[in-house]
Amino acid sequence: MGEFDLIARYFTRPVRRAALGVGDDCALLAPAPGMQLAVSSDMLVQGRHFFAGTDPKRLGHKALAVNLSDLAACGARPLAFTLALALPSADEPWLAGFARGLLRLADAHGCELVGGDTTRGPLNICITVLGEVPAGQALLRSGARPGDDIYVSGTLGDARLALEALQGRAALPPLWLAAARERLERPTPRVALGLALRGVASSALDVSDGLLGDLGHILRASGVGARIDTSKTIELIAASAYPASARGMIDPELLHQCTLAGGDDYELAFTAAPAQRATVAAAAQASGTPVTPIGVIEAAPGLRLVDGRGQPVAQRFASFDHFA
Amino acid sequence: MGEFDLIARYFTRPVRRAALGVGDDCALLAPAPGMQLAVSSDMLVQGRHFFAGTDPKRLGHKALAVNLSDLAACGARPLAFTLALALPSADEPWLAGFARGLLRLADAHGCELVGGDTTRGPLNICITVLGEVPAGQALLRSGARPGDDIYVSGTLGDARLALEALQGRAALPPLWLAAARERLERPTPRVALGLALRGVASSALDVSDGLLGDLGHILRASGVGARIDTSKTIELIAASAYPASARGMIDPELLHQCTLAGGDDYELAFTAAPAQRATVAAAAQASGTPVTPIGVIEAAPGLRLVDGRGQPVAQRFASFDHFA
Repeated sequence: MGEFDLIARYFTRPVRRAALGVGDDCALLAPAPGMQLAVSSDMLVQGRHFFAGTDPKRLGHKALAVNLSDLAACGARPLAFTLALALPSADEPWLAGFARGLLRLADAHGCELVGGDTTRGPLNICITVLGEVPAGQALLRSGARPGDDIYVSGTLGDARLALEALQGRAALPPLWLAAARERLERPTPRVALGLALRGVASSALDVSDGLLGDLGHILRASGVGARIDTSKTIELIAASAYPASARGMIDPELLHQCTLAGGDDYELAFTAAPAQRATVAAAAQASGTPVTPIGVIEAAPGLRLVDGRGQPVAQRFASFDHFA
Repeated sequence: MGEFDLIARYFTRPVRRAALGVGDDCALLAPAPGMQLAVSSDMLVQGRHFFAGTDPKRLGHKALAVNLSDLAACGARPLAFTLALALPSADEPWLAGFARGLLRLADAHGCELVGGDTTRGPLNICITVLGEVPAGQALLRSGARPGDDIYVSGTLGDARLALEALQGRAALPPLWLAAARERLERPTPRVALGLALRGVASSALDVSDGLLGDLGHILRASGVGARIDTSKTIELIAASAYPASARGMIDPELLHQCTLAGGDDYELAFTAAPAQRATVAAAAQASGTPVTPIGVIEAAPGLRLVDGRGQPVAQRFASFDHFA
């Protein structure tokens, strides 16, 4: 199967919103008046972002999900994406599965595949996603103010816990591992929540490299500091859905590590003024996404971790860095 | 050097036209009213699209050039691009060179680096470029009509000839090899010509996989056929700038192969009605880009090669296919 047959069979579909989709030198989008275009690119490399042998359907899902998560963090509505794919060979069952997982998530968000590239090479998936947001309404990292509440959506730390278990560094009950692995391999981009937080959140980003490291980006961009209650964050591991007996099997230090600096969460971390508490709760409800307050923005720079009684927690947690 | 330092040092610059550049979850673009957005992604893999050890400055140039060439083929004006980069290691001299070549070409076209991704992995460069074109004015592959002239910009076949020489399958005089290699490693995206051809060309694309194969895309999309004069195309190799004595050193069959099915040319192939001949010449002049008529669109499907006397040329030329 040649390159163009491959594109035709798996990645060419009629577009509805884009002015022109796959098949010319460029795709053409027609942005609505008054809209800004949000753009983000993510590259996933085998052995780095996913194991060799990962279910291609899940990989297709995840490759787009991590990009949609960036749109969510800006409060942008998904429009379209391009897919560039380097493949060791034109493996049809793999491609069929990958395309199924990818396009299913794309359809769920009305995000059209409009173009891209395929080539032979070590497995590498690069997606660029495009979304739209009314001019001036994008959620940025720079708007956090002292006194703002800090929230996280969904659950934290499960992806990292699954990784620890799959690599033999932690033992998990099978059901728990299955649930954690689901979060590692099929993250949920919080697009609806991002849209609902326009005009509500003062800052936002998506948690991809670990909560504390990512929160650091908000703090630096906003010129503020923060206090985080680790008795709240440790509860955000999906573990809380499991019996306390299972929970007790895991070293609490590992749970802190996973929730505070795990990575691969693809949840939103955001801030909002205390006056917005009811609105945040309504946004969470409307978007069907749980959100949990985990701390507060302070004027003094730096990140302060406290326990449930407000006492300082000494431990330091390193965020994920591909080149550190 | 960590991932974020690396991005900050080499790939973060203030944006002038984009509403938001590198440093948030998404970049933000503000398209002008009435404009459509043209989008294209290309992925370059070491060992496939370039040799290990290629001068990083040239590689930076080429990685963006092949994307700008797609915008040129649509008649779109470059706006912005994202860069996703997988690197075996954070090699600073390599990064400095790559960034220099990349950003120099970007600056020459007013195309801003607004975002991207860096990760560790086998060397892979994925660029997504964004341009704008007035709604309805994009040059497409589907507009060629019987009787239209077929043109090619610049020169053809030099990149392939350089590849043949570098891989020991052809011998070239040193000066000729240097010139051909320049075309392989530093292609010139024909952006100004693409802009000048809006409203003039009936169809266009960029020649990246070889003239005949790429022309086939126009023929299929337009539901037409074509006759190509190979006595014209063989003259398009930059060889014509060299003494006839040097030219005679090369097997004419190889020159036909390189010009008709070489690949990596990044020239524009386009069609225009005979009534547009003076306008095409003016567009070429205004954009400082030579264009050469090489044939004519015909109603009968298929691609017919003829020699200088109009006699059929039997040989078939295969276009480049990453998975064939």
